[in-house]
Amino acid sequence: MSLLTVGTVAFDDIETPYGKAGKIIGGAATYISWSASYFTDDIRLVSVIGDDFPENELDRLKRRGVNMEGLQIKKGEKSFFWAGKYHTNMNGRDTLDTQLNVLANFDPILPDSYKDSEYIMLGNLTPQVQMRVIEQLTSKPKLIALDTMNFWMDIAWDDLHKVLKKIDVLIINDEEARQLSSEYSLVTAAEKIMEKGPKILVIKKGEHGALLFHGNDMFYAPALPLKEVFDPTGAGDTFAGGFMGYIAKTGDTSAEGMKKAIIAGSALASFCVERFGIERISHLSQEMIKERVLQFEKLVHFDPVL
Amino acid sequence: MSLLTVGTVAFDDIETPYGKAGKIIGGAATYISWSASYFTDDIRLVSVIGDDFPENELDRLKRRGVNMEGLQIKKGEKSFFWAGKYHTNMNGRDTLDTQLNVLANFDPILPDSYKDSEYIMLGNLTPQVQMRVIEQLTSKPKLIALDTMNFWMDIAWDDLHKVLKKIDVLIINDEEARQLSSEYSLVTAAEKIMEKGPKILVIKKGEHGALLFHGNDMFYAPALPLKEVFDPTGAGDTFAGGFMGYIAKTGDTSAEGMKKAIIAGSALASFCVERFGIERISHLSQEMIKERVLQFEKLVHFDPVL
Repeated sequence: MSLLTVGTVAFDDIETPYGKAGKIIGGAATYISWSASYFTDDIRLVSVIGDDFPENELDRLKRRGVNMEGLQIKKGEKSFFWAGKYHTNMNGRDTLDTQLNVLANFDPILPDSYKDSEYIMLGNLTPQVQMRVIEQLTSKPKLIALDTMNFWMDIAWDDLHKVLKKIDVLIINDEEARQLSSEYSLVTAAEKIMEKGPKILVIKKGEHGALLFHGNDMFYAPALPLKEVFDPTGAGDTFAGGFMGYIAKTGDTSAEGMKKAIIAGSALASFCVERFGIERISHLSQEMIKERVLQFEKLVHFDPVL
Repeated sequence: MSLLTVGTVAFDDIETPYGKAGKIIGGAATYISWSASYFTDDIRLVSVIGDDFPENELDRLKRRGVNMEGLQIKKGEKSFFWAGKYHTNMNGRDTLDTQLNVLANFDPILPDSYKDSEYIMLGNLTPQVQMRVIEQLTSKPKLIALDTMNFWMDIAWDDLHKVLKKIDVLIINDEEARQLSSEYSLVTAAEKIMEKGPKILVIKKGEHGALLFHGNDMFYAPALPLKEVFDPTGAGDTFAGGFMGYIAKTGDTSAEGMKKAIIAGSALASFCVERFGIERISHLSQEMIKERVLQFEKLVHFDPVL
């Protein structure tokens, strides 16, 4: 089924303890699309780039079933650029440079063919841009998921809260959940956040896994412990893409369906961090994904205790 | 089956954001014994107290099947005392006072009736004291588990490494695993630590759960997300007590058996933090434990994904 995704398509400059990667392909919508493409082949991309973006990278995504009709290409302008350096233990990073470029005045325009999309993944962008996407939909989607970040809580609190009322699933990390709710306990944080609109909350805890709150149901998905985390960039977006791609594939938005989607997203994210940028997640097979998902199943399985 | 445990029996003074508890019953061996007592009734305690320790607290443990023959009571001396204050978010604590008292010259003497114990839980104490216990055993136990801490890595590195060669299971937290191995990745840390002696490693990650490395088998147990963590004191010892108590009950030291033991320990630890000190874990029923274990099973269960 159709998955509409909006987010950045960009260049990243990344330094981790394992090396440097200069001006590689990145952006939330790039990671989301690659990841989702392993589960569904009707992906509709909304984003903006300059005329400096390599065409062959767009072609690679097109071959994965990603519709580019909603991708604006601004002549004579430059694509969004982010440079960051990870700390020694990968548990934090410093932003070295952010060049908004084409993103500064981004107005997401939905082609008519996108307006009936069934599943919507709103990648991290200003809440106003996310709202603009929702407003252009002509039929009610089956599920709208949204990612956001601390920055928008700092400078666009009201707009963020307006868009929270329009969505079904909020996908944020633990730090963001605590800031959004002013609660330290993630259980209490989830209760408060779900009063703001979304009936479903996914809290990403990085190397500690992810929590799903779906009505009264609570689910804890582990992250796969890895020997080396090469580059964490895009892991959250890859998770979101796998999660929504899996839901678009199955059409199952029940708690049980979403638990499986969380594992699908976690499996894709575990690949993402094994190489720089999209290097790993743009070269997967269904067989590799299946094997990784089985590792997750094995990782948490235990026989009845009492 | 018999479980020998050595560790402190002590007084604690605890301050958390939820309140203060002055001079309450604490100590690693206290938590371990209470927790294990829900699974096995042949517990053999080795510890030392002064004559200031309330007799009725010892009687309560005796009624749970805890043998006190190995508990030394030093006339005219005072029991070990620790005072600490937790940070606002419970993710750290400051030690305000430590009075070793009877612990300063503790020589753990095993009564003859203890020397054939099948399961051994060496609570956090100096590595020399832990080694002294092992040396007095006359028959080879089925399993020896050991807890330790950063402090002994700082001041007793060689002694710690001697005792590591004598044990089967090491139970430490993530920070300690990283210090002991000089590795950040817990997978690599586990490999390095297992080369030091223990064939089995349990890494406690607090609110993020626990990892079990058992040969080539890896298992990730979640922690139960809680609305309120009232007092984290003793949670690690309660976990260890439940883990070893469960193994002493089942006699199953296979990877599958230990996964279940990890869940048993996690369930007991989740009770521990809900009240100050041993308040909660000294008033449990088998029914309550069973219900909590089922919550853990539900928390991580998902249907086949692909």
